[in-house]
Amino acid sequence: MANTENREPKVYSVSSVFLCFSIFYATVLLNCNHVHGQTSSVFACDVAKNANLSSYGFCDKSLSVEDRVSDLVKRLTLQEKIGNLGNSAVEVSRLGIPKYEWWSEALHGVSNIGPGTRFSSLVPGATSFPMPILTAASFNTTLFQAIGSVVSTEARAMYNVGLAGLTYWSPNINIFRDPRWGRGQETPGEDPLLSGKYAAGYVKGLQQTDDEDTDKLKVAACCKHYTAYDVDNWKGVQRYTFNAVVSQQDLDDTFQPPFKSCVIDGNVASVMCSYNQVNGKPTCADPDLLKGVIRGKWKLNGYIVSDCDSVEVLFKDQHYTKTPEEAAAKTILSGLDLDCGNYLSQYTGGAVKQGLVDEASINNAVSNNFATLMRLGFFDGDPSKHPYGNLGPKDVCTPENRELAREAARQGIVLLKNSPGSLPLSSKSINSLAVIGPNANATRVMIGNYEGIPCKYTSPLQGLTALVSTTYAPGCPDVQCANAQIDDATKIAASADATVIVVGANLAIEAESLDRINILLPGQQQQLVSEVASASKGPVILVIMSGGGMDVSFAKSNDKITSILWVGYPGEAGGAAIADVIFGSYNPSGRLPMTWYPQSYVEKVPMTNMNMRADPAIGYPGRTYRFYKGETVFSFGDGMSFGTVEHKIVKVPQLVSVPLAEDHECRSLQCKSLDVADEHCQNLAFDIHLSVKNTAKMSSSHTVLLFFTPPDVHNAPQKHLLGFQKVELPGKSEGIVKFKVDVCKDLSVVDEVGNRKVPLGEHMLHVGNLKYPLSVRI
Amino acid sequence: MANTENREPKVYSVSSVFLCFSIFYATVLLNCNHVHGQTSSVFACDVAKNANLSSYGFCDKSLSVEDRVSDLVKRLTLQEKIGNLGNSAVEVSRLGIPKYEWWSEALHGVSNIGPGTRFSSLVPGATSFPMPILTAASFNTTLFQAIGSVVSTEARAMYNVGLAGLTYWSPNINIFRDPRWGRGQETPGEDPLLSGKYAAGYVKGLQQTDDEDTDKLKVAACCKHYTAYDVDNWKGVQRYTFNAVVSQQDLDDTFQPPFKSCVIDGNVASVMCSYNQVNGKPTCADPDLLKGVIRGKWKLNGYIVSDCDSVEVLFKDQHYTKTPEEAAAKTILSGLDLDCGNYLSQYTGGAVKQGLVDEASINNAVSNNFATLMRLGFFDGDPSKHPYGNLGPKDVCTPENRELAREAARQGIVLLKNSPGSLPLSSKSINSLAVIGPNANATRVMIGNYEGIPCKYTSPLQGLTALVSTTYAPGCPDVQCANAQIDDATKIAASADATVIVVGANLAIEAESLDRINILLPGQQQQLVSEVASASKGPVILVIMSGGGMDVSFAKSNDKITSILWVGYPGEAGGAAIADVIFGSYNPSGRLPMTWYPQSYVEKVPMTNMNMRADPAIGYPGRTYRFYKGETVFSFGDGMSFGTVEHKIVKVPQLVSVPLAEDHECRSLQCKSLDVADEHCQNLAFDIHLSVKNTAKMSSSHTVLLFFTPPDVHNAPQKHLLGFQKVELPGKSEGIVKFKVDVCKDLSVVDEVGNRKVPLGEHMLHVGNLKYPLSVRI
Repeated sequence: MANTENREPKVYSVSSVFLCFSIFYATVLLNCNHVHGQTSSVFACDVAKNANLSSYGFCDKSLSVEDRVSDLVKRLTLQEKIGNLGNSAVEVSRLGIPKYEWWSEALHGVSNIGPGTRFSSLVPGATSFPMPILTAASFNTTLFQAIGSVVSTEARAMYNVGLAGLTYWSPNINIFRDPRWGRGQETPGEDPLLSGKYAAGYVKGLQQTDDEDTDKLKVAACCKHYTAYDVDNWKGVQRYTFNAVVSQQDLDDTFQPPFKSCVIDGNVASVMCSYNQVNGKPTCADPDLLKGVIRGKWKLNGYIVSDCDSVEVLFKDQHYTKTPEEAAAKTILSGLDLDCGNYLSQYTGGAVKQGLVDEASINNAVSNNFATLMRLGFFDGDPSKHPYGNLGPKDVCTPENRELAREAARQGIVLLKNSPGSLPLSSKSINSLAVIGPNANATRVMIGNYEGIPCKYTSPLQGLTALVSTTYAPGCPDVQCANAQIDDATKIAASADATVIVVGANLAIEAESLDRINILLPGQQQQLVSEVASASKGPVILVIMSGGGMDVSFAKSNDKITSILWVGYPGEAGGAAIADVIFGSYNPSGRLPMTWYPQSYVEKVPMTNMNMRADPAIGYPGRTYRFYKGETVFSFGDGMSFGTVEHKIVKVPQLVSVPLAEDHECRSLQCKSLDVADEHCQNLAFDIHLSVKNTAKMSSSHTVLLFFTPPDVHNAPQKHLLGFQKVELPGKSEGIVKFKVDVCKDLSVVDEVGNRKVPLGEHMLHVGNLKYPLSVRI
Repeated sequence: MANTENREPKVYSVSSVFLCFSIFYATVLLNCNHVHGQTSSVFACDVAKNANLSSYGFCDKSLSVEDRVSDLVKRLTLQEKIGNLGNSAVEVSRLGIPKYEWWSEALHGVSNIGPGTRFSSLVPGATSFPMPILTAASFNTTLFQAIGSVVSTEARAMYNVGLAGLTYWSPNINIFRDPRWGRGQETPGEDPLLSGKYAAGYVKGLQQTDDEDTDKLKVAACCKHYTAYDVDNWKGVQRYTFNAVVSQQDLDDTFQPPFKSCVIDGNVASVMCSYNQVNGKPTCADPDLLKGVIRGKWKLNGYIVSDCDSVEVLFKDQHYTKTPEEAAAKTILSGLDLDCGNYLSQYTGGAVKQGLVDEASINNAVSNNFATLMRLGFFDGDPSKHPYGNLGPKDVCTPENRELAREAARQGIVLLKNSPGSLPLSSKSINSLAVIGPNANATRVMIGNYEGIPCKYTSPLQGLTALVSTTYAPGCPDVQCANAQIDDATKIAASADATVIVVGANLAIEAESLDRINILLPGQQQQLVSEVASASKGPVILVIMSGGGMDVSFAKSNDKITSILWVGYPGEAGGAAIADVIFGSYNPSGRLPMTWYPQSYVEKVPMTNMNMRADPAIGYPGRTYRFYKGETVFSFGDGMSFGTVEHKIVKVPQLVSVPLAEDHECRSLQCKSLDVADEHCQNLAFDIHLSVKNTAKMSSSHTVLLFFTPPDVHNAPQKHLLGFQKVELPGKSEGIVKFKVDVCKDLSVVDEVGNRKVPLGEHMLHVGNLKYPLSVRI
C-alpha cells in the first residue's frame, strides 16, 4: 500500500476531520475507518432472506421508479428520512434497507479517495487513466465515453465484491480559466464546448447501460462543482469563503454550458454544488441555481449533492445563516437533496421543529436520492442477478482496459515543438538515450489526484528503456528542485545520442487546496533543462508533465531543445505512451485544451477576478483564447503531428438565411441579432465539409478544430470553438470531415444580460490557418 | 525558546545519539539532559568547604601548573584517570573535584549547542556575531581578536552563574577549498594566511588574560578540525568515512598553515582532530600528525581532543581497528588526550588490561587535560575570587558588545557591484523602498550554525524600515523557493523609488552534514530577482546572504541590478549593518575571503578531489585563487568602496640579497631555491610602504591586500597573499600603510616533498592593479 501511505493528506473538510479526530476521538475514529467500502452481500429487497419484503411496493420491479420511491418514502419515519440526507445513509433494518455510503470517486479510474470504495487483496488496483486535462487534449468524444465505460465496468465489478459504491462524484467540469488553479488538472480545460462534450461523453460512458430502459444506470455520475468554482487556495483566498463575482454574461456563456451539456446531453444523475459563493450566495443555498436552473430549466433526473461539508461551511465559515438549523432548511428548500457530511442529518430535525422546513421538502429530497438508487438496481435484490452481476475481479485491470489507458495517454500527448531531425527518434540510429529530470522516473506523479491504486505503473524511464539503452539522472532531488544536481545530468547527456528531459509539476506544486503562485518550471528545473540542453550532442526532447500550462518560453526559443511534449499527468501507462510518441510508433495528435500564458500574465491578473472579458480600463487582459488578446507561450488548440496535414473546405454555404415573419423586429435595420428562442431559428442547420490530406508517409490521427469569429457585438468572443473531430488518416491519404452546424446553438452569442442570440452579419470560420467568411442574414 | 525549538536536528555523531537514546535509553537519556550547563557553585579546591584540600599540592596556587598536575595525577586511581578522558569528566569526590563538561562552543558568540553551556532566565541570550566567513571578509586582525575577547567575557560571565564551561571548541579553521562545503560558512575562507591570522586573532581574543602570567587562560579555545577536513556529506560521501588523499605539498602549503599559526602564533590551548582519514589514516589515530606535528614541531601547550565520537567512528565505521580497545589504545598512543564521547572511558580500561596501552600514556593524556583546567583557574577555588569573578549577567549583551556585532557585520559586508548613481541611497531622495526576498526579514538565518540565542535580532527589513518607509514581499515561501511569488514582489518594486532584494541560502541549503550540489541561487530565486529588477524603476540592490559563493553571473551582467552586496550570515545585528551600508552611514570595505566560481566549475570538479593544484591531464582546474586560472564570478579579494582609493608604492627594495657562505650550494647556477632553514635566511626582512589615497569626500575604511607571485618553480601558487591591513581614511586624505616582509616566511614556497624554500629570481608584488617586481638574489 505504498500508494496510499505516500499520499499527501487531503482535507475534504477541515471541520469534519476535526470532529472525527478530536471531539469524538474514540468512537468516530472507528467509524471513519469502518465506512470505507460497502458492506458486501447486504442489499435492499433481499427477498431470499426476508420473504416479507416481497410485499413492499418499493421492492416491486414491475412498478415505475416513481411509484416505488413513493411507496418507500411513505413507509419511512421523519428520522429515517433525515438519516438518508447524508452521504453515510443510515440503514432501515425494519424494511431490510442496509446503510449506504454515497461517496465514491472515479475521476479517471475507480478511486479509493472516497469512503465508499476501497481496494483489497481481491481487487488490489484498478485501471488508472490520464488525468482529464490530458484526455481532453485528445479532442475525441468517443474516447471520453470509452474511458467512462471501462471505469463503470470496473466499478460494478468492485461493487459486486463489496469494495465499491454505485454513486461516483465525477467528473469535475469547472472551466480551467486560470493556469494557477490547483484543480485545473481534474478538468477538461478552458473551453465551454470541449468541457461540455467531455462531460456528456464521460457521463454517458459511466452511466449508460445496454438496457433498452434508458432510465437504468450502470453507475451514477455527478458533474461538479456547480458553479463558477475556480479558486482553491490562492494567497490565502480559500474556496470555502470565496465569493465569485460573475457577470450574467460570463455565467451563461462560460461557466454554465459544461453543466448544461452534462445534464441535458449527458443525462447525468447528479450535480454537486460548490463551496464558493456566486455573487454573494452560497451555491448550495441558492434556489435560483438549484431549483431554478438545474431542475427547472435543465430538468435534472437525479439528485443534487453538496460538496463535502459545504452546508456546515456556509454557516460556520461564511456566516451565511444564523444557525445550523437555518443552514439545513435553506439548502433543502433551495433544492439540495444530499449532504456530503453529517450536517443535514444532525440539524434537519431541529429545522423541522423550528418550522424552518416542511416535511414535504424532505420527502422530495430523499425521493431524489432513493430514485437514483432505484435506477442503479440497489432495490432490486441480489446484485449477482443484475445485468452487471457477472462482473468481478477478473474484469478489473484487464489487458484491454490497460491498453485503453495507454491509448488515452497517446491520444492526449501534445507535440508543441519539433525541429527538423528531432522526433520521432529512430531506435536504429539512437544507441544510447540519456533520460533526465525529476519526473523521468515518475510513477505516482503520473496518476494525479482523486486516484486509485493503478494496475501497474510504467514510468517514462521504464517505457524508454524498453526500446533503447538508457542512462538516468533525476537532475533534481524532487520536483520542487531547490538544488538541481546538474553535473550528473550534463555528464550523461554529453555522452548519449539523444536526451529526454522529463520535468514539470506534481501535487506538491498544484493540487486541491493549492493554487500556484507562479507558472514557471518549479525551482531550478529551468536551469537544469538549459544546462542539459547545452551539454547534449544529439536531439533534446523536453517532456513537460503537468496539469496547468508552464511558462517555458526559454525552451521554445532555445535551438538546442529540439522538441517539446506536454503529457499532462498521463496515468498508469504514461511512460509507455511517451515512449510510443518519442520513438514514432504513435503519431501525436493531441491539442492543448488550455492557453499557456507567460509568467507576466499571472502577475497582472488576480486569480480572484472572475471576469472572462478584458477590461482595458484596469489593464485586465481577459481570460482564455476566447477573450485574451495578449502573447501566449502556447495557445489553445496548439499541437503538431509528424508530417503535415492540409485542410481544404469543400462544402459550406456562403450565406445562411433565416426566414422571418414579415413583422419580425429584425426586419428593421437597427436589429443586430436574432433571439435563439425565435421559432424561425429552430432546426436551422447547415453542413460544412472539409477535406483533410495527410501529406506524410506515416499514418496520423488528426484533430480538426473548427472555430468561428462572430460579428463584433455584445462583447462576443474573438474566436470560439464550434466543433471538433478526430480522424485517422493513413499515410498519403485524404479524408472528408463533416460538421453539422446548428445555427441557433452553434453560431449564437450571449448578450450582457444572459440572452443567447444569433448575430446577423459576417461569421468568420477558421480551421488551422484557413479562414472562410460566412454571412448570416435575415 | 523559539530559537532552539526551530533548530534543525544536528547530529554530532550518529553513534552517540544512538547509544544515548536506544541502548541505554532510560538512564543515559537523563544524563544527556542533565549535563547541559555546569553545576553552579561547585569547583575544585573549595577550601572554604573542605579545609583538608589545602594540604594537596594540586590546590597550591604557588606551585607551577606542571607540579600541581603531577601532584594531582599521582593521587588518582587508574579508573579515575580514565573517567577524565571523556568530555563528560567524572567527579573525584574524595579529592573535592567536581565533574566537568568539556564541550562548549563559541564559534561566533557563546553557543548553547554543546552540553556545557545553556541559557536561562538569568542569561537569556548572548551577543551573536557574524559567521566567521563574514568576519574574515573584514581582513581586520584587530577585529578578530576584539570579537574573541567579548565572547570570552560573556562566557566567563555565564560560567560564574553556572551556565557555561571554560573550554570552547572554536574556531573552525579548515580551508574553504570548495564552494559546496556546508561548513565553509564557519571558516575564515580559502586563504592560508588569512585563515592563520584569523585563527591566531580569535584565539588570542578568547584566551588572553590581563594577567602578566601568559600561561593563564581566560577561556580555552580549540582549533579544529585537524586536518584536511573539507567534505561533510556530498553525494553520499560522508565525513565519517571520507579518506582525504592529500599531497605533502598541499598539506604543508594549504591545509596545515592555519593550524600552525593557531598553535604557534595564537598559543591555542587545544586542537581537535577530525573524522576523516588523511591518506588512509584517521587523523585521531595518526601519531605523525598529533605527536609528531602538533606536539613535536609546533609545541602545543594544551590538550588534543577528538571530534565527537571519532574514536568510535574509526572502529565502527572506518573499521580501522579490530576492537574498540585497540581504537582506544591507538588514539591515546597517537597523542589524543580527550575523547568527545564516551568511548575512551568505556574501553581504555580493557585496553590497559590487554596490554595495548600503558598507564604512563594515560597519565600523559589526563595531565594535558588537567593542566588546561589549572590554567583556567578551575583548581583555584571559589570563582568569584578569580580575576573574572566579578563578571555576571550584566556583562552579557551589553550595548558595547552588541555594537561590536553590528560593527563586525559592517566591516565584513562586501560591495561587489555598484553602478553610478546606485549606492549609497539617500534617505532624502528615497521616499519608498521595496524590500523583497526570502532573506529580507531573516532573523535566525542571520546567525548561522553553532549559534546561541542572540540578544536581539535586527532583520534587514527592520534595519531598513528604521531609516525609510518600506514595503515588503518575501517573493518566495522560503529560501528553497520552489515557487516564487513573483507578482507580489514586482508590484511593490514597480511603485517604490528603490528596491532591495535579499536572497541567498540558509541551513537547509548549506550546513553541517549538507554540502551543496549546485551553487546557483536556490530554487526560483534567480527568476524572482530578474523579474523584480525588470519591474523596478529605481536602483536595485541585490543582497546575497550566504556562507558559500553563488553563481550570480546573471545579476552581474544585468544592468537593471545596480548593486550587489554579499553579507555572509551577518549575525544578530546584520539587518542594521546592511542598512548602514545601503544608506551610506558606513562605507563598505569588506573583501571576499573566497573565490566565487561559476556553476560550470562544480560540474567539472569532484568535491572529493583534495588537490589544490590543477591537473590539465584530467581537466582538473585546481582550487582557490592561488591555483585556479579559469573564469570566476567574483574573485578572492574582490570588494569595492564608495569612491576610489589610489595606491602608490613609496618604499620597497628592488633587490633582496641573501648573504650566503662561500660553499653554499646555491652559489652554483643550478640552485633555484634557498632553504628556509638556512641560517642566512633567518631574520632577513624588509619593509614595503604604500601610500593609499582616498579621493572621495566620504571617509572610508580601506583594506590593502598585498599579494606576490613567486618565480615559477615547484608548482608554486600563481599568486599568494603576503599580508593585509585595514586602514581608516577620512575623506580626501592620504595615509601610509607599512608591511614588514620576512623573506623566509613570507616569500617562501613549499616544494613537492614539503620543504619550504625561498625561490631565487623575480617575485612580483601586487596591490590592486599595481604590480612591482622584486628580485631575490644570493
